[in-house]
Amino acid sequence: MANPYVKQYLMTAGPTPLPPAVSQVMAEPMMYHRAPAFIEVYARVLRRLKDVFQTANEVQIFAASGTGALESAVANLVKPGEQVLVASCGKFGERWFELCEAYGADTIHWETEWGRRIEPAGLDEQLTANPGVELVFTTFSETSTGVVNDLRELTEVAHRHGALIAVDAISGIGAVPLPQDEWGVDVVVTGSQKGLMSPPGIASVSLAPWALDAIEGERGPRFYWDLRKARKNLPLGESAFTPAVSLIFAVGEALTMMREEGLTNVHARHRRLGAATRAGAQALGWTLFSKSPADSVTALEPPAGVDAGAVVKRLRDTHGITIAGGQDHMKGKMIRIGHMGAYDLSDIYVVLGALEECTKALGGKGTGAIEAARRAWETA
Amino acid sequence: MANPYVKQYLMTAGPTPLPPAVSQVMAEPMMYHRAPAFIEVYARVLRRLKDVFQTANEVQIFAASGTGALESAVANLVKPGEQVLVASCGKFGERWFELCEAYGADTIHWETEWGRRIEPAGLDEQLTANPGVELVFTTFSETSTGVVNDLRELTEVAHRHGALIAVDAISGIGAVPLPQDEWGVDVVVTGSQKGLMSPPGIASVSLAPWALDAIEGERGPRFYWDLRKARKNLPLGESAFTPAVSLIFAVGEALTMMREEGLTNVHARHRRLGAATRAGAQALGWTLFSKSPADSVTALEPPAGVDAGAVVKRLRDTHGITIAGGQDHMKGKMIRIGHMGAYDLSDIYVVLGALEECTKALGGKGTGAIEAARRAWETA
Repeated sequence: MANPYVKQYLMTAGPTPLPPAVSQVMAEPMMYHRAPAFIEVYARVLRRLKDVFQTANEVQIFAASGTGALESAVANLVKPGEQVLVASCGKFGERWFELCEAYGADTIHWETEWGRRIEPAGLDEQLTANPGVELVFTTFSETSTGVVNDLRELTEVAHRHGALIAVDAISGIGAVPLPQDEWGVDVVVTGSQKGLMSPPGIASVSLAPWALDAIEGERGPRFYWDLRKARKNLPLGESAFTPAVSLIFAVGEALTMMREEGLTNVHARHRRLGAATRAGAQALGWTLFSKSPADSVTALEPPAGVDAGAVVKRLRDTHGITIAGGQDHMKGKMIRIGHMGAYDLSDIYVVLGALEECTKALGGKGTGAIEAARRAWETA
Repeated sequence: MANPYVKQYLMTAGPTPLPPAVSQVMAEPMMYHRAPAFIEVYARVLRRLKDVFQTANEVQIFAASGTGALESAVANLVKPGEQVLVASCGKFGERWFELCEAYGADTIHWETEWGRRIEPAGLDEQLTANPGVELVFTTFSETSTGVVNDLRELTEVAHRHGALIAVDAISGIGAVPLPQDEWGVDVVVTGSQKGLMSPPGIASVSLAPWALDAIEGERGPRFYWDLRKARKNLPLGESAFTPAVSLIFAVGEALTMMREEGLTNVHARHRRLGAATRAGAQALGWTLFSKSPADSVTALEPPAGVDAGAVVKRLRDTHGITIAGGQDHMKGKMIRIGHMGAYDLSDIYVVLGALEECTKALGGKGTGAIEAARRAWETA
């Protein structure tokens, strides 16, 4: 049996740990999804999601992983054979490309080097060179590299070229500000298991009115992801298909907590969590992989001589802390610490304290992670 | 505030109530879906789902409503333009038709009158008249009408004509026997919120090896539902996309309970629940809508002069019991009592006792529902 006093900490970039109230609300008695009592819960979740998306637009929910809502955007917006642009800067950006290809788009995949943000000037060049593009797919906070993109600027560029922009904000919403309406972002997708500090299994998408018009045309096959079906049921306060009732309870509770904290405070907390994590890790000789670090997840390359994969393993086996390693060509070459959702400074102390031990044990040096983190937290 | 002593009973045909252990396991700490501890849980769920499907075939899981797994069958099996046959006998059978149409099949929709089962002889005629059909889509237990179909015979007929058969067993698995391997059923789909007595949000599908071969060809767009992706990740014990971790915990717990009860006993319990419900309701002058009643859900037409819609409302408002009414053209004309999942005879007493009161209050007569139910339970 595992030692119960090696407490388990989940600090991957999703799923994230659940606040006790969120965990517990799932044990509430099951409800019939067409019953008035559930319709009330469902309507409240839809309303509060709008607050977090910072939008007056309709928000739609799917019982699915985040990828499902990405697919809904592609299935409803992409005309087979249409030229679209995917602007990616990591593994999750590549998913847009795969989806557009699956739906028969003529896809231009413009890739930015891992670790760098997508440059608005570069997007401008791409769209100038490809004037036929009316749809741009991109990423807000790229989980694989710890990069956050400037969605305000990217949206401006896309609009200047007459294109709509659809954003994967699965890891970002609820951690980093993305005021959809203020910035005019056309389509925003998120999932439940990141900044919304809920279990995985709920995906949502919000479309501006003009983007909603675009879903009405001829498209490839769509059924479960058909936003027209979802919209048809919205006035009844119902979902097109049986919703994941207990997960809706969970998201509802999490959104209530976020409302009580206040979205500005939620964002400020994440800003400080990000700053603290970066400062602490750098004090130990780790290097930020991202040139534009997100406050949702921190990607770090190890000090010379320290094996990143061994650190992930030692954190888990010795300290009970689960973080993520690198993906694809960065496998074994970095670590990624998630701090979006139900985290506070104590959690950062825990992971940095353990990282200090592991770094030393595995051949690195450096100290003072906690102090550096606290200073950064205080001034961020 | 609602009176807490009008206890709430959920007796729709899904979602079904959860056993306390299933509710509570969702509050267990969140796990990283790539961590060894979760992979173990996930593998156990896949293994135990096979026991319930009564198959040695691979079972795949989606984070989705049951409809998602239906769509996966269509998206992976149907070649655009291909002639397929949908044999339906109610609202959920029609979903197969809508899905096949969405995916561009040349769909023959053979509809059996609501309340009647799909006759094997009729299927034989249909397939004789349409020798090009290589795929038949049909329903096991049709929730909208309370009908159960004879899948053994329907499968035999399909195979005799060289066609594969895909079955929507969303409401059926875990309640009524459907031994996939013994009967040679090619594709079986289910959801978590029916016989598996778990929350909605997990869908699964099981394909016989020869049906698995069929998914490899050219198809329309598929990504989230792509069974090739799901299969690729299976040897790692992982899902293609982030699984609904807390729902996997729930299904895992429910499957453990079913294993402890023993599948034969689970089926016997449902046989008795069905018999008891039918006998009790008939004692009150209600008529079985289904000519081939399923043991998962009982569809009933009211005695002369009694308004079915008013009964649904009174059961809810006076007795705290949520059942379902009729759908589509049967709206307001029938009631449907679900009894698949975590039910025993006490639950049937509760609903029948209340139904007796409502029937009388709303102009009917008849008595002795409980006694009739008990006798049927004892002899079924």
